[in-house]
Amino acid sequence: MEKILKAKPLIKHKYQELKLEFEKLPKPLVMKVIRLGQDPASAFYVQNIVNQGNKLGADVELVTLDETTTQPELIRLIEQFNQDDFVDGIMLQKPLPKHIDESKINYLIKPTKDVDGFHPINLGKLLLGEDGLFPCTATACLTMMEYYDIDPCGKHIVILGRSNVVGKPLANMLLLKRKAGNATVTVCHSKTTNLKEVTKCADILIAAIGKPNFVTDEYISDSCIVLDVGINEVIDSEGKIKYVGDVDYNSVFGKVIAITPVPNGIGSVTTYELFKNLLKAKIIS
Amino acid sequence: MEKILKAKPLIKHKYQELKLEFEKLPKPLVMKVIRLGQDPASAFYVQNIVNQGNKLGADVELVTLDETTTQPELIRLIEQFNQDDFVDGIMLQKPLPKHIDESKINYLIKPTKDVDGFHPINLGKLLLGEDGLFPCTATACLTMMEYYDIDPCGKHIVILGRSNVVGKPLANMLLLKRKAGNATVTVCHSKTTNLKEVTKCADILIAAIGKPNFVTDEYISDSCIVLDVGINEVIDSEGKIKYVGDVDYNSVFGKVIAITPVPNGIGSVTTYELFKNLLKAKIIS
Repeated sequence: MEKILKAKPLIKHKYQELKLEFEKLPKPLVMKVIRLGQDPASAFYVQNIVNQGNKLGADVELVTLDETTTQPELIRLIEQFNQDDFVDGIMLQKPLPKHIDESKINYLIKPTKDVDGFHPINLGKLLLGEDGLFPCTATACLTMMEYYDIDPCGKHIVILGRSNVVGKPLANMLLLKRKAGNATVTVCHSKTTNLKEVTKCADILIAAIGKPNFVTDEYISDSCIVLDVGINEVIDSEGKIKYVGDVDYNSVFGKVIAITPVPNGIGSVTTYELFKNLLKAKIIS
Repeated sequence: MEKILKAKPLIKHKYQELKLEFEKLPKPLVMKVIRLGQDPASAFYVQNIVNQGNKLGADVELVTLDETTTQPELIRLIEQFNQDDFVDGIMLQKPLPKHIDESKINYLIKPTKDVDGFHPINLGKLLLGEDGLFPCTATACLTMMEYYDIDPCGKHIVILGRSNVVGKPLANMLLLKRKAGNATVTVCHSKTTNLKEVTKCADILIAAIGKPNFVTDEYISDSCIVLDVGINEVIDSEGKIKYVGDVDYNSVFGKVIAITPVPNGIGSVTTYELFKNLLKAKIIS
């Protein structure tokens, strides 16, 4: 196995496969990406999605709404896209402004167009091991493991973080009785006592807490594989913005069997999973 | 804390509370219990539910169908109960005959009448920490812990078993950021390597695998609390049927801080949870 589990070779290969699937369809897939407000990091991220969609031959339309858009206005737009048979997938860029009730909105996107995989019925199907649209970052971890021949079966996988978008969906996926499952799974978080003791039990440690460089060599055993889901904005010594993971890469590198870097790690696979969901949305609708 | 965590005092207290809630309602709650076939153990179980419902002042109707009932016939009956405003809750006794597709049926019971808590949307809400109707045996474990002042916060809880009705829902509940949550949770199962090593890490071990007397003193540490979810039929030395848990009670008793017995343990609390769900079903509908 390679020591640095880079996303680049994986996504190059996977996007080629996906493009062939997209080309088999009678007409381009249509995805609406809804964004509220003008946050530049968010704008950069969604523009990247639009560009990637174009490369795949999908029709990705960015719908930018004013930050003051009301909840009823947003609901009307989502309902319009739900009913539009030409729309295959709807993505709502997070975080949403505070006056929007995110949990309510998650219910409104039609489950078969829910490319983010945040609708409760999709999460229920995930728990049950049934087919559906599932959260992209969680599936990105599985895709990364599969590409680099890391078999979760029987491994003790410790997930650091219990979010609704990564930690919990991923834990449920890894427990399933199936090829990319059958792991022993521990989820730990801010309330965990003796955290280092727990993380040291991991054959595979997946960090998803959003704390820059949190995991140092003290948290891992000698034969650990590390997946770093974090993408944290920090200011480097020259005052420039840079992105680091939840894992202190330099601290753990000498100790691990393999590790995903940041950037060019899990985050880069997440966008691929979004388009895989878009294709799945078309198939299951 | 008492060493033997019996259900009896708990359910006596809880049923009194619940009866008062039921009496506040303008008319009796109505639950339909559907059962296919003539299995005597199953008949005994549902008759117990009917009796308990009567004591609470609920109107529990047992609908016994022939084992050869077809899937479309069962679906028609469920849809009739879904549409009937006088029906508050629908329970479908498992296991179902093999010609019935259980996962499909789980989708058909209206989520707000789903007193078993098996509908994917209820399980999705569970994962998200939202309110809904949740599987009774999993909530019974939380009720038992709460009654005996066992706070899961920060504890390492190891769940043995990954079923859709106990192991996985319970793991997700115990992870939630709330009073009866905040635990570090490990789920292990038949594919777990070094099982004893993992279970020995548990502050609280919850056994839900359906294997009689599986957990012996070799599986636990000295300061462990054990919840035994299993109810397994075995034949004793005199050739009589008796029920034992997944935990070898005599083997572990000297070592544990506390343990739930079988019978008079978690199983007895499960029926209470069903009626709590029935009340909740009325409130959320």
